[in-house]
Amino acid sequence: MNSLGRIFRITIFGESHGKQIGITIDGCPPGIGVAEDDFIADLNRRKPGQFGTTARTEEDIPNIVSGIYNGFTTGTPITILFENKNTNSKDYSNIEHYRPGHADFTASCKYLNYNDIRGGGHFSGRLTTGLVAAGVIAKKIIPKINIISKIIEIGGQKQWEEILATTIKSSDSIGGLIECTIQNVPIAMGEPFFDSVESVLAHAIFSIPAVKGIEFGSGFESAKMKGSEHNDIYIDKTGKTLTNNAGGINGGLTNGNDIIFRVAIKPTPSIFKTQQTYNFKLDKITNLEIHGRHDSCIALRIPVVIEAVTAVVMADFFLQR
Amino acid sequence: MNSLGRIFRITIFGESHGKQIGITIDGCPPGIGVAEDDFIADLNRRKPGQFGTTARTEEDIPNIVSGIYNGFTTGTPITILFENKNTNSKDYSNIEHYRPGHADFTASCKYLNYNDIRGGGHFSGRLTTGLVAAGVIAKKIIPKINIISKIIEIGGQKQWEEILATTIKSSDSIGGLIECTIQNVPIAMGEPFFDSVESVLAHAIFSIPAVKGIEFGSGFESAKMKGSEHNDIYIDKTGKTLTNNAGGINGGLTNGNDIIFRVAIKPTPSIFKTQQTYNFKLDKITNLEIHGRHDSCIALRIPVVIEAVTAVVMADFFLQR
Amino acid sequence: MNSLGRIFRITIFGESHGKQIGITIDGCPPGIGVAEDDFIADLNRRKPGQFGTTARTEEDIPNIVSGIYNGFTTGTPITILFENKNTNSKDYSNIEHYRPGHADFTASCKYLNYNDIRGGGHFSGRLTTGLVAAGVIAKKIIPKINIISKIIEIGGQKQWEEILATTIKSSDSIGGLIECTIQNVPIAMGEPFFDSVESVLAHAIFSIPAVKGIEFGSGFESAKMKGSEHNDIYIDKTGKTLTNNAGGINGGLTNGNDIIFRVAIKPTPSIFKTQQTYNFKLDKITNLEIHGRHDSCIALRIPVVIEAVTAVVMADFFLQR
Amino acid sequence: MNSLGRIFRITIFGESHGKQIGITIDGCPPGIGVAEDDFIADLNRRKPGQFGTTARTEEDIPNIVSGIYNGFTTGTPITILFENKNTNSKDYSNIEHYRPGHADFTASCKYLNYNDIRGGGHFSGRLTTGLVAAGVIAKKIIPKINIISKIIEIGGQKQWEEILATTIKSSDSIGGLIECTIQNVPIAMGEPFFDSVESVLAHAIFSIPAVKGIEFGSGFESAKMKGSEHNDIYIDKTGKTLTNNAGGINGGLTNGNDIIFRVAIKPTPSIFKTQQTYNFKLDKITNLEIHGRHDSCIALRIPVVIEAVTAVVMADFFLQR
Repeated sequence: MNSLGRIFRITIFGESHGKQIGITIDGCPPGIGVAEDDFIADLNRRKPGQFGTTARTEEDIPNIVSGIYNGFTTGTPITILFENKNTNSKDYSNIEHYRPGHADFTASCKYLNYNDIRGGGHFSGRLTTGLVAAGVIAKKIIPKINIISKIIEIGGQKQWEEILATTIKSSDSIGGLIECTIQNVPIAMGEPFFDSVESVLAHAIFSIPAVKGIEFGSGFESAKMKGSEHNDIYIDKTGKTLTNNAGGINGGLTNGNDIIFRVAIKPTPSIFKTQQTYNFKLDKITNLEIHGRHDSCIALRIPVVIEAVTAVVMADFFLQR
Repeated sequence: MNSLGRIFRITIFGESHGKQIGITIDGCPPGIGVAEDDFIADLNRRKPGQFGTTARTEEDIPNIVSGIYNGFTTGTPITILFENKNTNSKDYSNIEHYRPGHADFTASCKYLNYNDIRGGGHFSGRLTTGLVAAGVIAKKIIPKINIISKIIEIGGQKQWEEILATTIKSSDSIGGLIECTIQNVPIAMGEPFFDSVESVLAHAIFSIPAVKGIEFGSGFESAKMKGSEHNDIYIDKTGKTLTNNAGGINGGLTNGNDIIFRVAIKPTPSIFKTQQTYNFKLDKITNLEIHGRHDSCIALRIPVVIEAVTAVVMADFFLQR
Repeated sequence: MNSLGRIFRITIFGESHGKQIGITIDGCPPGIGVAEDDFIADLNRRKPGQFGTTARTEEDIPNIVSGIYNGFTTGTPITILFENKNTNSKDYSNIEHYRPGHADFTASCKYLNYNDIRGGGHFSGRLTTGLVAAGVIAKKIIPKINIISKIIEIGGQKQWEEILATTIKSSDSIGGLIECTIQNVPIAMGEPFFDSVESVLAHAIFSIPAVKGIEFGSGFESAKMKGSEHNDIYIDKTGKTLTNNAGGINGGLTNGNDIIFRVAIKPTPSIFKTQQTYNFKLDKITNLEIHGRHDSCIALRIPVVIEAVTAVVMADFFLQR
Repeated sequence: MNSLGRIFRITIFGESHGKQIGITIDGCPPGIGVAEDDFIADLNRRKPGQFGTTARTEEDIPNIVSGIYNGFTTGTPITILFENKNTNSKDYSNIEHYRPGHADFTASCKYLNYNDIRGGGHFSGRLTTGLVAAGVIAKKIIPKINIISKIIEIGGQKQWEEILATTIKSSDSIGGLIECTIQNVPIAMGEPFFDSVESVLAHAIFSIPAVKGIEFGSGFESAKMKGSEHNDIYIDKTGKTLTNNAGGINGGLTNGNDIIFRVAIKPTPSIFKTQQTYNFKLDKITNLEIHGRHDSCIALRIPVVIEAVTAVVMADFFLQR
C-alpha cells in the first residue's frame, strides 16, 4: 500500500501530470516548529538543474493544508501538496509500446490500463518531492541524529566528471552509487524479527524509484570475509567498536556506532539513443525514440531522497522507543 | 514486531534454550493438504551436519497444534512448535563480555538485561526452523511459482571446497553469497509505494540472521552501467525481455520474467580462534575464547531459509491479488 | 492513527478552520467511473440546513487531486480535498475554559496545547465531509450491497417534530437514534478473532463524533432474552433465517441475512443555554455562554456518515475475500 | 485477522477439540515478573462450575513456552499454551444441520467445510482462555489502572437467582448485561480518527463470542437526552466532571474520569429444549435436540474475559504514549 511506518506514518499520493502530488504525515508529535522556508534547502537538492539532470524547471512550493497551526505541528495529520506545473502532456493516447526499463508495462497490467500514463503517473520520480518534504519534518523529530547521504560513484568511477560528460554526449544515461551515514544513533533501535533496522530501512529505500541494491556495513564484501576479519571488536562499555563491518547493526538492532549503507541506483531508463522495444499494435519489435527532458544520471538527485526516507524510518523507530 | 505479512501473516516466538520455539501462520486458505512428512525435506536442508556446519544434532519434528484438521488446513491460525532438545545451557550467569558480531550487547540494551542470553535467545538461528516450516505451507499456496535458492560463492570463490577446508582448519568462519530465482511469477504483483516487491522481499530477507546485503537483477552492477546496456528490451506482448537486468521487477511490480536476487551472508561471528572484546566486569579489553558447537559457514544452511521467507512473501502477494 | 482499513484504506486530515480538509483513499480498484457530480447527493444529505441543524452554509465541492484519470479510478491513491470557506475564526486566543462535552480539554492535554482549537480543529464534525466522499467511492465498489441508514428516534420519540421544536425553542440540543440496514450481504465476510464484522463496523462507527453506543440485531434486548427466543431458525439451505436477532452475523461472520445495527447519538454539546464550566484562568467554576451557529440535533446529519463509514468497511471486507 | 493491538499485540490460535489452544503476546516490555500462579485467579473466574454454567471440568494450566526467563518477561514474544483435555469428540461426521445461533453455517461457508467443527472449533468460547491469560500479563503493564467488570443483570433482572433457576429448569438459556469500569485512567489516551478509545475497546470487546452491543457512559440513554442534561460539567482543572455521561471519553480521548461501558451478552445458543433448524441432507426443516454440557448463562463467565480484553487494549494505549 501507499503508506509507510507504524507510529510516524506517511501516505503518498498523486501522479506526475495530475493536479497535485502530496504526502500526508500522521503521528508527528505536536509542538515542532515548521515554516515553509524549512523545506527549501532539501527540495532544492532534489531539483533538476545540475549537470547531468533534466532541464525541466520544477517550482516546488510546499502547500501545507493541515496539521500546522501558528507555525507549530499540532499533532494531527500534516498534508503537504505540490502543484504540478510545467507539465507537457501532449498526446499520450496513441502509445503503442512500453518503454524498456519503465513501469509502463507492469503498471498497465496491474491497473488494467486505467492508470495515468502521462509522465509515468504515480510511478514518476516526481512523487519523491513528497518524500523529501516528509523527510524535512522527520529530521526535526530526531534533531540529534545526523543523516548524510552522498554520491560516491557514477558509472563505477569515484571521479565521474568525464564519464558523465561522455554519457550525456552519447545520448545515454548512467547509474550511480550512494552512501548514507547515520550518526549519533541511539542504541537498541529495531526489532529482532521482522522489523530489524536493516529490514525497515531496506523496505523504505527500495520504494525509491531506480534502487536495485542495498548493503549495510561491509555488505557484499562480508560474503568474502573470514569471521576473524569481520567481527567488530568492542573497545569500551558504550559498545563502541574498533571497526564497523556491521554497519552499526547487530541482531537487527542499532549498536550505537554509525549506521552505514550503500544504495545502487540504475541508469535512467529514458535515453535519447534509439532503442528497440515491442510494438503491441504492430505486433513486432520496432525502434523507439524517446524525446522530452530527462535526467542522464538520476542518481545525482537521489541522495536527498534517501536522506528523507531514512529520516522517516529513524523518526518512526525513535517514537516507538 | 515479530510478525510479517498483510494477509498471509506469520508470527515467530521462542528462544534457543527455552521450552519450545514456534511459528503461527494466519491467513492461510482452507483446504490445503498438509502432513507432518511434508516438512522433512526442507527442515533437513536447514539442519546442521554438512561439512562446514555444526555437529550439533537437532531433531526437528514439527508439532502442529492448531489449524490443521483431517490433514487439511482449516483456514484458522496454524501453530507449529519445535521442542528444544539437546541444548547445553551450562552456566551463562557469569558472562562478563559481549561476543563480537553477536546481538549480545544490543539485545541486553534493548531488553534491559532481562533477555534470555542462552544460545542467543530469541536472536538465535534456531528460530529459523519456524520460518522453514512456514515456508513449507507458503509453497503449497503458490504451487506454480518455483523458488530456487542456492549458494553461489563462499569466501568469494565459486569453487569453495578449499577455502572452506582452510577456514575450518584455522578455527575461523567464512561468509557466502546466495542467489535466489523465482520462476513462473504472475505479472503485476507488488505496489508502487511503499510495498514494492523489492521492498517487501528485502524486508523479509533482512530478518534472517547474518544477512548484510541484497540486490535485484544486475543489482550493484547497475550502478556502473549505461541505460543502453541496462534497459531490458521487450520481445513479445507477454512482457518477456531479452535480458533481465531488472531482476523481474519494474516500478516495484513483477514483470513476469524471473525474479532474481542475491543475498550476502556474513561469516558466523562465533569462531574458535582467540579474539578480543571488552570485558565490562574488568573494565578493559581482554581475550575471548568461544567453545561449543558452531557453524564455520552459516551460509550453507541459509538457502532454504531464504526460499521459505521468499515463499511467505510471494504467498502474501498472491493472496492480495 | 488517522487511517482505517486493511486493503481499502482511508486516511483523514484537516482542521475545521484550516485551509482544507480531505481524505486519501488507498486500495481502490482501477476502472471505477467517478464524476464530481456523484458526490452531490450524499454531500447534500450531510449538509446543514434542515430544521434542527445549523444555518451555516457549507459549500462542499470535492476537489479530486489524484487517482482519477479520464473519469475512472486509476488504482492509485485518490485524494479529495474540500476548501474551508465561510469560517468565522474570531479571536480564539483568550479562551479560559473548556466547553463541556467537547474535546477541548482532552485534545489540549494530548497535543500539549498546540492543537488548532478553532471550531474544534481536527475533532470537528466538518471532517466527516471526507468520510462521506470516501463512502461515495466505497459504494461504487460494492454496487450490489445496499446500505440504508436513517433516524428512528429523536429524544426517545418516534414522532419527533414536537420535541425537536421544543428543544430549539429552549436553546438546548437533543440526541437521536439511527438504524442502519445492509442488504444483499455476501455470506462469510469477517474474521472470527479479532476482526469480526461487529468489531470492524463498531471500530469505524465509533470514530464518528457523538456516537456513544452500537448494537447489532436485537442488541441490548438480547441480554434479556431466552435462547429459545433469540435463536434464529434456518429455513433454507442458503442460510435464510425466520427471525434476525443476530443482526445478520454469527460467530463474527455475515450469514447472508440483512445486517442491522443501531447507533446512539448524543445531543450536540454546544448549546445556547447558559451552562457551567471550570474557568482555569480564574481557577473557579463560572458560567459559560456559547454563541455561533450550531446544530440542535446533530443526529439529523449523521445517517449519511454512518452509511459512508459502513460502505468503507464493507468494501474493505469485500476486497479481502 | 487473528491479531489485536499495535504495540502490545496478541495473536490467538487453536480449536476447541484440537491439541492445544494458545496465545502469543508480542510487544510486552521486559522485566515484568510473571509466575504461573499469577494466572490462577483470573482463569478460575472464567471456569465453569458456578450455578448456571456447564459442569464440564476444564483444567487450565498455562504452559509458558517462550518470552519468560528466570521469572521475568524478556521483551520477546510470550507464547502460552493450554492443553485441551476432557474433550468429548464423538462422531461429528454425520452432521446434517447447522445449529441455530452458532457459527456452524457461517464458518462452513467461510472455510469451505474444512473447518474443525468439533465443539465449535476456532469459534469456541474455549479460546477465551488465551484472552484471559493475555489479560493477566496486560494488567501487570498497567498496575495503577484498575479494571472491574461484573454482571449487572441477567434476563433483565437485577436480582437474577429466580430467573436463572427457572431458565435451567426449562432447559433454556438466558442473556445478561455486564458493566465494566476502568479507574485511574491516564488523560488523553486514544486518537481522534480512527482509533478513538471507544473504537478500539469496541473492536476488542466484539471479538468475544456472544457480545451483541456496547455502550459508553449514558450510552443509548444519551439518544434520549438534552444537551443540558448530558454535558458533564468540569469542576476542577484536572478535568474532573460532576457527572459522567461521557463515560470518561471526549472526542475519542480519555478525560481522566472513569471509563464506564456496558456490554450485552446474548443467551447461549446451545439449549436442551427441542428447536427447529434446516436439515440440508433431508432438505427440509426438522427438529433438533442438542445434548452435551452447556452453559445456561454464558454471561456469568464473561466478566473476566471483558476485563482481560480491556486490559490488553489499555496496555496497548499505555505503551503508545
